[in-house]
Amino acid sequence: MPTVPETVTAPRGYRANAVVAGLKASGRPDLALLVSDRPAAAAGVFTTNRVHAYNVERNRRLLAAGRPLRAVLVNAGNANVATGEQGRRDTETMAALAAAQLDCSADEVAVAQTGVIGVPLRMEGIREMMPALAGGLDIAGGERAAQAIMTTDTRLKQAARTLRIGRREVRVGVMAKGAGMIHPNMATLLCFVTTDAALSTGAAQELLAAAVDETLNLVTIDGDQSTSDTCLLLANGASDTPPIESSADPGYAPLLAAVQEVLEAMARAVAADGEGATRLVAVEVTGAHNVADARLAARAVAGSNLVKCAVHGRDPNWGRIAAAVGYSGAQFDPAALCVTLQDTLLLVRGEPQRFDPTAVSAALGADEVRVRVELGAGEARARAYGCDLSAEYVSINSDYTT
Amino acid sequence: MPTVPETVTAPRGYRANAVVAGLKASGRPDLALLVSDRPAAAAGVFTTNRVHAYNVERNRRLLAAGRPLRAVLVNAGNANVATGEQGRRDTETMAALAAAQLDCSADEVAVAQTGVIGVPLRMEGIREMMPALAGGLDIAGGERAAQAIMTTDTRLKQAARTLRIGRREVRVGVMAKGAGMIHPNMATLLCFVTTDAALSTGAAQELLAAAVDETLNLVTIDGDQSTSDTCLLLANGASDTPPIESSADPGYAPLLAAVQEVLEAMARAVAADGEGATRLVAVEVTGAHNVADARLAARAVAGSNLVKCAVHGRDPNWGRIAAAVGYSGAQFDPAALCVTLQDTLLLVRGEPQRFDPTAVSAALGADEVRVRVELGAGEARARAYGCDLSAEYVSINSDYTT
Repeated sequence: MPTVPETVTAPRGYRANAVVAGLKASGRPDLALLVSDRPAAAAGVFTTNRVHAYNVERNRRLLAAGRPLRAVLVNAGNANVATGEQGRRDTETMAALAAAQLDCSADEVAVAQTGVIGVPLRMEGIREMMPALAGGLDIAGGERAAQAIMTTDTRLKQAARTLRIGRREVRVGVMAKGAGMIHPNMATLLCFVTTDAALSTGAAQELLAAAVDETLNLVTIDGDQSTSDTCLLLANGASDTPPIESSADPGYAPLLAAVQEVLEAMARAVAADGEGATRLVAVEVTGAHNVADARLAARAVAGSNLVKCAVHGRDPNWGRIAAAVGYSGAQFDPAALCVTLQDTLLLVRGEPQRFDPTAVSAALGADEVRVRVELGAGEARARAYGCDLSAEYVSINSDYTT
Repeated sequence: MPTVPETVTAPRGYRANAVVAGLKASGRPDLALLVSDRPAAAAGVFTTNRVHAYNVERNRRLLAAGRPLRAVLVNAGNANVATGEQGRRDTETMAALAAAQLDCSADEVAVAQTGVIGVPLRMEGIREMMPALAGGLDIAGGERAAQAIMTTDTRLKQAARTLRIGRREVRVGVMAKGAGMIHPNMATLLCFVTTDAALSTGAAQELLAAAVDETLNLVTIDGDQSTSDTCLLLANGASDTPPIESSADPGYAPLLAAVQEVLEAMARAVAADGEGATRLVAVEVTGAHNVADARLAARAVAGSNLVKCAVHGRDPNWGRIAAAVGYSGAQFDPAALCVTLQDTLLLVRGEPQRFDPTAVSAALGADEVRVRVELGAGEARARAYGCDLSAEYVSINSDYTT
């Protein structure tokens, strides 16, 4: 096999590029274009917030029509939210500008946006730079695109996997940006998955929804849900594998596994790089009565401000973990509860264990803190990813923005 | 009317005292006793956390039996949670020690506890100081008791009201402690309401539940619910007013109003004095489809870390408020949404308004920040009380505790 870049352009038939359009105060690249050389079946998962960006509404409409996409245009630095009718027109104009360069319909160009809200988009830079953006598209541009969509992300978030469907190699790529902005108004998660497998629109949607449910939906940074969260999947069939029409087709399961793998990597990267975060908190709940309960418990622990502060302070405070499980709504008997931090059992069937606090505190200094909770109420399990809560989070989010 | 102290001992027939039992590292008073000279009808509202303190379980059992109470014994500095069978025995012993001094049954003494968890109670000091605690009971002791139950509270929380039932004066008193501990494991809210009205046990429970629902239940500091939250009401009938047997009795409504008033004062005081808080955030949601929706929206706004950070930074960030309402689960049309910060309309029927950011930011420096959200979906309304999120919250809750 040839060496494939570990980027969103790893699958065949994708190119990308990024330019400086003047939207980020830092002067860094802020406008990215991802293009499939042939029409790609598309699927999307979006914020469920009733207050959402126009681009979310527009992407939902494009996908509902079931038509393939050719490109995704993403800008960082301005979310184009709360900018009224002009904002809507600007998003449409962005799609049209890209479509003109790519010789396709504006309805084949999805748009995603992240950044400050309530501020009109400066369209001049976008308009001016569009020819250069389209002109510089290439396979090596995946990494440039991943850089351009970053806001307060401190690390680049991209990955790729290869798999086999029949005798053919199929590739999956991904890029994402996490929760956080230099001048934050809302934390937004954007994620773009590419594959050269062939998928029907229906199968693509089913696969993406299933994969997101087990990965990105497990991430909680601060419990605040963005108005612009977007995850798109493009499947262009350039691997020349037989089209996957449903979950019963033989290619579906391995492709789902690969998409889940890259999204899992993004979920962990986004959690670990949460605003002000110093470490990833990976919560696993076992022994739940059902999956819904397991998720309630896992999310309550990962989302608890007090647990997050304790992790930040390397405090083996199992009491806060037990309390979060207690108010999560999950069914369990406190007398059956077990809590493990890193590899140390702190609570066994409701009984506090003797442990060496210095050793456990030292273990909590790792980049990844593993919290395991056994409910003793059944067989179901779930995970959640979060991060610690630091004074830095507060200072990032207290800055006066207008 | 004689001058009545604005304390929990304002109503006739109550005395209180506090001593140093050696449970607080600071060496401050940490053991408080509140006594009714005659048996008092009692009611309680407790944490709904599945993981709860033994004292919560015991108080629930005492109240379920419907018998009157004579006293409430409260210690701060140690929550006596996760201390196993010994911890249960210690709580029972505390009740028995107080009962021996008061010449009543241990089943007439409620116990409430707050402080670190997982550490056995040092019973020596409690045992040794009990005679002095009971011996020093007097009407002036209400303030001493309110001081003793404080943990990281920075301000004393107590209040009193008088009302008339028929021709007689009836009094209501209250003391509370808020969310926060010197060595925090869990934030605990304790609140004790006294009255010299006469109430049946059933009417007392109905009245307290209704009053708490409209006051203490509106407070959110960090979304983490304690294992020990307790609110008790004692009604000893010392005003010689006719017994209130149900909500239909003429005395019920004015008494409910007075209890709500003192609990409202406690709710606001607890929110304003949240860990690391610099100001109270009072959220009012109007125009909701129903009360449940109004509450969802109000709590989402008051509980949003991003909104709390914005308030801390005096940032008129209505976008975060709109986003929190959007994910709250409340039904509304974003095009009908209005947001007011202090007295400035920032969003009117979905349209951002021009405003002077410097002036609004200055107004956000007040001790109380008022957020008003109009959903445009009906007639229901609700409030919620919260506080800003500061770096101090993180540092308080990151301290290594074991």
